[in-house]
Amino acid sequence: MATDQNTFQAIISHCKEYGFVFPSSEIYDGLSAVYDYGQYGAQLKKNIRDYWWKSMTQLHENIVGIDAAIFMHPTTWKASGHVDSFSDPMIDNKDSKKRYRVDHLIENYADTLPAAEGTALVAQMEDLLKENDYDGLKALIEERKIACGVSGTVNWTDIRQFNLMFSTQLGSVTDEASEIYLRPETAQGIFVNFLNVQKTGRMKVPFGIAQTGKAFRNEIVARQFIFRMREFEQMEMQFFVRPGTQKEWYEYWKETRLKWHLSLGIDPAKYRFHDHVKLAHYADAAVDIEFEFPIGFKEVEGIHSRTDFDLTQHQLFSKKKLQYFDTEINQNYVPYVIETSIGLDRMFLLTVCAAYQEQDLSTPEKADSRVVMKLPPQLAPMKLAVFPLTKKDGLPEIAQEIMDECKQYFHCFYEEKDAIGKRYRRQDAIGTPFCVTVDHQTKEDHTVTIRYRDSMEQERIHVSAVRDHVLKATTF
Amino acid sequence: MATDQNTFQAIISHCKEYGFVFPSSEIYDGLSAVYDYGQYGAQLKKNIRDYWWKSMTQLHENIVGIDAAIFMHPTTWKASGHVDSFSDPMIDNKDSKKRYRVDHLIENYADTLPAAEGTALVAQMEDLLKENDYDGLKALIEERKIACGVSGTVNWTDIRQFNLMFSTQLGSVTDEASEIYLRPETAQGIFVNFLNVQKTGRMKVPFGIAQTGKAFRNEIVARQFIFRMREFEQMEMQFFVRPGTQKEWYEYWKETRLKWHLSLGIDPAKYRFHDHVKLAHYADAAVDIEFEFPIGFKEVEGIHSRTDFDLTQHQLFSKKKLQYFDTEINQNYVPYVIETSIGLDRMFLLTVCAAYQEQDLSTPEKADSRVVMKLPPQLAPMKLAVFPLTKKDGLPEIAQEIMDECKQYFHCFYEEKDAIGKRYRRQDAIGTPFCVTVDHQTKEDHTVTIRYRDSMEQERIHVSAVRDHVLKATTF
Repeated sequence: MATDQNTFQAIISHCKEYGFVFPSSEIYDGLSAVYDYGQYGAQLKKNIRDYWWKSMTQLHENIVGIDAAIFMHPTTWKASGHVDSFSDPMIDNKDSKKRYRVDHLIENYADTLPAAEGTALVAQMEDLLKENDYDGLKALIEERKIACGVSGTVNWTDIRQFNLMFSTQLGSVTDEASEIYLRPETAQGIFVNFLNVQKTGRMKVPFGIAQTGKAFRNEIVARQFIFRMREFEQMEMQFFVRPGTQKEWYEYWKETRLKWHLSLGIDPAKYRFHDHVKLAHYADAAVDIEFEFPIGFKEVEGIHSRTDFDLTQHQLFSKKKLQYFDTEINQNYVPYVIETSIGLDRMFLLTVCAAYQEQDLSTPEKADSRVVMKLPPQLAPMKLAVFPLTKKDGLPEIAQEIMDECKQYFHCFYEEKDAIGKRYRRQDAIGTPFCVTVDHQTKEDHTVTIRYRDSMEQERIHVSAVRDHVLKATTF
Repeated sequence: MATDQNTFQAIISHCKEYGFVFPSSEIYDGLSAVYDYGQYGAQLKKNIRDYWWKSMTQLHENIVGIDAAIFMHPTTWKASGHVDSFSDPMIDNKDSKKRYRVDHLIENYADTLPAAEGTALVAQMEDLLKENDYDGLKALIEERKIACGVSGTVNWTDIRQFNLMFSTQLGSVTDEASEIYLRPETAQGIFVNFLNVQKTGRMKVPFGIAQTGKAFRNEIVARQFIFRMREFEQMEMQFFVRPGTQKEWYEYWKETRLKWHLSLGIDPAKYRFHDHVKLAHYADAAVDIEFEFPIGFKEVEGIHSRTDFDLTQHQLFSKKKLQYFDTEINQNYVPYVIETSIGLDRMFLLTVCAAYQEQDLSTPEKADSRVVMKLPPQLAPMKLAVFPLTKKDGLPEIAQEIMDECKQYFHCFYEEKDAIGKRYRRQDAIGTPFCVTVDHQTKEDHTVTIRYRDSMEQERIHVSAVRDHVLKATTF
């Protein structure tokens, strides 16, 4: 797999330098695998979220949105299977008290072996993992004398499952206090509200419920910048269909979601489908939409045919009927579900990676370069920058009039310091698609220079045309 | 204080019946003081959030938004004072193991006494609470022989502070695992990012940083529907100013925030300012914007002059300089802060309470009534409903054409079942400001009936005018 760690590192630095993404609580040296979105990142993230929300709810008459809480009744996660099986196998060294993920411990050891031997060991490990054979895994570790990096001993505990859900205590009064979880996915908030939404919204199958919101996973190895975080945001939609029609709806959503991605104008060659070969126990079909990041092809979105697994489980645990009466066929049933699930932070990373370019602008006379973020104009955090050429002669006043009108409609940036070229480059770096400059000619003929981010070309347009020019190019 | 519990209960029922707010995880009998927003509630909440965000960031050139994580480095909450003092005094009965909030235990007992005696007891308790005199409070409980409702005994533990922050464990590997908190307010996410934003955004004091997001408090008594929840959403803005100018900026934001509320067209008589008499240790001025809910005047938003308390604390704990060099006066300083802090869920409740009306429409001939939500059109979850008068004669096709155009611009609702009057009433109940009906005349002259929610008046307008008619009335 061809990867480009240098480009990836450059993008991470750029995100920090230009106010897109900061390490969380950085003044306290950060918090592992948690990030904060800065002034341009927060707006870019919001624009992506809003576009998804509009595409899902506003443009689909049979999809509605909800906003369920992060805290849910703990039985929800019993029913969904997360309490019992959302976990990784871990092992502790008795001397150092250090804990390891079993697969990482063995893989790190395998890396120290000659290639063929290492590969064979990893294959053996994977077979044991597949069968949840923890005794076998422990025996393997002991046989190979795989030692703890800290204590240097092979004195290991048994292997145990470590659940990836964060837990906390709700309530303080003893008889009320209970252990609850931070949701590891938003989907269950939709399933438990299925009947409430269907009834109060008089929804008819097929229909969908969409939601965006935070989810939390105590990842053992969280890494690759915002690609895998412990706190992240999902955009999920569950589409409820008549049993037997799931295959056609699965195909529909697979196609519809890819179209959504391509509507952003990003190179189609960077996308591919990846069918799941090994399906989760609840699924009868599943596919990932993968994008070619600088670190290789990675999952951005999943489309899953989840059958009636979740609703049936919630029926079982809640002892409440979660069924739909289909008047067309006069039948009661538990609907089947097609899910589309996309990570907002990954979509953010995708957008930034697809947009980031280091351009050599050198001429024979002069070395020159720029970093430009060719963000889809509809997603760019700032749509327009307005510059008076100088700070005097009434130019700032004219520029401010343009600001006052345009900022009613979209995010605008105003700056009067530094040379124009420098100001353009700063806007390139944050991805602003348009800059207009007010100069002395503006006072004569009411025209301004509009400068295009991608081509760097400039032309003069009438002041009164600026707003619509930008609006047209930046609205989905 | 005049309150109207019946109206409040009717609003809660209405919110549930029409898909605005559901108890969280209701199929599992709910989770105390946690709620989910249904299909119309989620959209109304989003519209309020978006309006605040636009008002703060897009319309103010010197305010930018960020999106910090819920998880923060735990030292953040040491510095802010939350670890040491964000707590309530609690006491446990040794026999029943039941835990009580001290003030509730005493107040409930006082309620059983003759009025004058009860009032005196509560006054005595309040004096002790003010001085954090826990020994005195425990002595009071024992003297009065205040017993546990479960065990009936006066066998109490000492009084202890119970912290309102939720905690959880981050990381799994022993040497990395640490106790962290779910943020009890979003403000600290802004303070710890102050320098990052100021530097990368080249911000000049005075400037602001805005943020919306979830916060969590393990309230002992969470109640009054979504007014006080354990999981809630804040919209906060910290405005950084030159020391000495905080008084004028405090007045500016007090006025600006009230104007924002009044811009929604809600009766100004329902709003009032409430100055804090007892100031928090970090504040040199503070005021609440209160709204008259059916349960009385309650805080919706706070404007606080927080001095340089937070930044100075973070300097102290992080050992990093959080200062600003003011080129105008050639001076380094820790900026002072004016904060505006509004609860999104409370603003939602305010909007719903202000909008809810039960109208008697009876005539001498016929008893009639309706429930209507007179939501500000800009905030209404659905902007337009489109109805074909009948399901045949090509009327649904014309209605669908109107839908297809309008839904590109705003949320539209389509329905072809039931009598028109019934369909109008359902839209009244969710607060849709406009309904258009396609009838046989539409086929002749391309006009439709537009019906206004508040006046219930109707007029005919051209099909091609529908979109702009609605857009104009529903855009801020």
